[in-house]
Amino acid sequence: MAKNTHQPPTGTRDVYPLDAARRRFITESWRRASVLHGFEEVDGPTFEHLDLYTVKSGEGIISELFSFTRTGGEKTYALRPEFTPTLARLFAAKAGSLPKPTKWFTLGAFFRAERPQRGRLREFLQWNVDMLGDDSPAADAEVIATCVSLLSSLGLTPADVRVKVNHRYALQQWLVQRGLEVDKHADLFKILDQRGKLPEADFAAALAPFGFNTEQAEIFTKGVVRLTVDDPAHKGPGPSPEVVDLTFFAQAVTPLAQQFTQMGIIDWVDFDLSVVRGLAYYTGMVFEVHEASGAERAIAGGGRYDNLVELFGGPKTPAVGFGMGDVVLALVLQDRGLMPTDAELLDRAGFAPDVFVISNGQPESDEMVRPLCAALRRVGLHARHTYKATKNVGKLLKDAADSGAKFVAIIENAQLATLKDLRSGQQDPAPTPISLVPEMIRQRLGM
Amino acid sequence: MAKNTHQPPTGTRDVYPLDAARRRFITESWRRASVLHGFEEVDGPTFEHLDLYTVKSGEGIISELFSFTRTGGEKTYALRPEFTPTLARLFAAKAGSLPKPTKWFTLGAFFRAERPQRGRLREFLQWNVDMLGDDSPAADAEVIATCVSLLSSLGLTPADVRVKVNHRYALQQWLVQRGLEVDKHADLFKILDQRGKLPEADFAAALAPFGFNTEQAEIFTKGVVRLTVDDPAHKGPGPSPEVVDLTFFAQAVTPLAQQFTQMGIIDWVDFDLSVVRGLAYYTGMVFEVHEASGAERAIAGGGRYDNLVELFGGPKTPAVGFGMGDVVLALVLQDRGLMPTDAELLDRAGFAPDVFVISNGQPESDEMVRPLCAALRRVGLHARHTYKATKNVGKLLKDAADSGAKFVAIIENAQLATLKDLRSGQQDPAPTPISLVPEMIRQRLGM
Repeated sequence: MAKNTHQPPTGTRDVYPLDAARRRFITESWRRASVLHGFEEVDGPTFEHLDLYTVKSGEGIISELFSFTRTGGEKTYALRPEFTPTLARLFAAKAGSLPKPTKWFTLGAFFRAERPQRGRLREFLQWNVDMLGDDSPAADAEVIATCVSLLSSLGLTPADVRVKVNHRYALQQWLVQRGLEVDKHADLFKILDQRGKLPEADFAAALAPFGFNTEQAEIFTKGVVRLTVDDPAHKGPGPSPEVVDLTFFAQAVTPLAQQFTQMGIIDWVDFDLSVVRGLAYYTGMVFEVHEASGAERAIAGGGRYDNLVELFGGPKTPAVGFGMGDVVLALVLQDRGLMPTDAELLDRAGFAPDVFVISNGQPESDEMVRPLCAALRRVGLHARHTYKATKNVGKLLKDAADSGAKFVAIIENAQLATLKDLRSGQQDPAPTPISLVPEMIRQRLGM
Repeated sequence: MAKNTHQPPTGTRDVYPLDAARRRFITESWRRASVLHGFEEVDGPTFEHLDLYTVKSGEGIISELFSFTRTGGEKTYALRPEFTPTLARLFAAKAGSLPKPTKWFTLGAFFRAERPQRGRLREFLQWNVDMLGDDSPAADAEVIATCVSLLSSLGLTPADVRVKVNHRYALQQWLVQRGLEVDKHADLFKILDQRGKLPEADFAAALAPFGFNTEQAEIFTKGVVRLTVDDPAHKGPGPSPEVVDLTFFAQAVTPLAQQFTQMGIIDWVDFDLSVVRGLAYYTGMVFEVHEASGAERAIAGGGRYDNLVELFGGPKTPAVGFGMGDVVLALVLQDRGLMPTDAELLDRAGFAPDVFVISNGQPESDEMVRPLCAALRRVGLHARHTYKATKNVGKLLKDAADSGAKFVAIIENAQLATLKDLRSGQQDPAPTPISLVPEMIRQRLGM
């Protein structure tokens, strides 16, 4: 038969055991941060009716979606590109019986039909954290604190990553106060969303029609903003108050800054007026998490979306949340040397055995290897044995050590086995009845 | 704006917190059984090139697939209906550097474009366990032992579920010995695969052209087979050796039965000649796990597929494995009262807080609620507080108890809080400095 060689589709991944252990490290960290902050898990289908996405974002989004009509079918579906529309449906369907606020997280596979590049794949994992039914700055801060808790639990510090916060509504009010009509805001936001993709001079020039000269444009190009109202923590490199008067904007975001201070996360936060987020549905606070030097794409992004649940048939409900993908996060952890070593990852994933069972080479001992493994597994122990034909006990002991096993059980005959603790190197002075080995190992492991 | 009401696609599920906790209970049980038996996790893309599935199963499978050409795209993809082709690719790509045997498991979402019915959805979770590079009956038995370990860990017993084992190669050799030519076997297997879907009399009648009279057909219709060679554990209700001589078949499966005995799982196993599995790629042992009364679809199914890796471009490699879905398993657990209670599920998922923080109602105490929660979370504790406006400490204590919290911290003023253990009902006689509360709770939880 002719050989076939198959490849995974462009932008998707084959996941080998070490990749799976790395993935599990990230998803379990996401889960722990969610749970510590009182969020409960939800999920939805991997594919949805296409109109779930077009109702909110218009037809323009279709080119970025894996949208499809099933061969032989009629309905048009899409692989989910994000979780928020599904979340809005889940909430709208049960809004009357849910607690206020409702705090939900999810984690799973999402899909984008873009050209794959560094930090961006067609299939990726994403963590979503959302809080519905609370319109306070405290809710905004609680969601960001959950994000910061995750970053911190992975060993990242405010020197490694920055949480760049803006406030769309406050920004818009301030722009109106400066004389920019509301119907021009969307055009300005489109340009702001291109910061980092345009050369800096072109970017600054593009801001001129909106009433910002080159010097004033620094509030958008420099990233960090110098706020002036009662916010000593934020003395960014942006232009001085004489060049741009941000008093009005600063007043609007002061309650948010106070919450960040109260929750102990103000050190992680910069106010950055260029962060507006592409999606049309944000209504208030928006934020992105970036590697400090700006070298990678955003690690996470989100904000407040107070009109969305209503759009999906639910009651008007304030909401705030964010998403974080696994791809950029893993790149940042690897760059900073914060991804655990392979051995640590395998141990965390439970892949290092509790016991490695070997035979002393006698046929009656060989016969007991699998039954002892079976007995160990029945009491919840991770047991392994060799599949090699060798009878060389020295080689088998080395295999046991290489597997990362905590104990080795050397079967002496049909009744007896000798235990050795591979961490201390200590071997028992006398053998143990095989039937007692499982309980003895459990005791020594404190189970 | 007009209200939209959206529904998940037919045969898919919206997953609320209790559903998620139930799902996590099953997936973590799958993971634990895999790890205890020395299997390591792998995974692949959620969608694949369509030809990955047609190369093995022919074009006929397309109608059961979610196959699609992306809107505006050219390549034809399919949402994965099963894991084995992906597994074969993973193995073929690295066969030279992988251990012998290679023991892999995976768990995730799979898709079938069938009409949804009891026990069968269009999107479901599936656990796969595979052992590659070992052609021994011991490998067959080890894979089945992993499946039995999962069933047993969930509280199921041999009285609840039966592992129905057959051997396609032994069956075929025996059929040839009885005079049925090999080119008729596929037709017979097609009929055998319909057992349970046809009325029993029609099924038995359909076997006549293959050389089985009604009395002899009982080896297929009765399910459990009476084996005669040295296999005292299997005295099923099938016809006596005078009606059908199964000696030849029994000899072929004796090594397998011996392995089941050695691994302590023989009580779970029936030999059932009607189990042939639909998929064309099985070459030896095949099995299905069924609820004992036969009331539901198969809980799990698998077998040996020694030619598949080669078909995907790898070296000729013996392999054996199985898949288990979440839908039928959950039905059986619920029917038997073995699904944990809602409270147990939420506790297992970590949704019961370690600490519930409440204020005594003074403004300076109110101010400390969120900072204390933040401090508790920073040391890895799951902390919650109320979002209600009430200052009634009695009501707040009830909310704390309802949340399932282990401790409550009652803030007395800007500096002090009183701890109460909600499990014992014991309240501390004196308050503690707020700054010491996180460490004190960790100590009392033995962290």
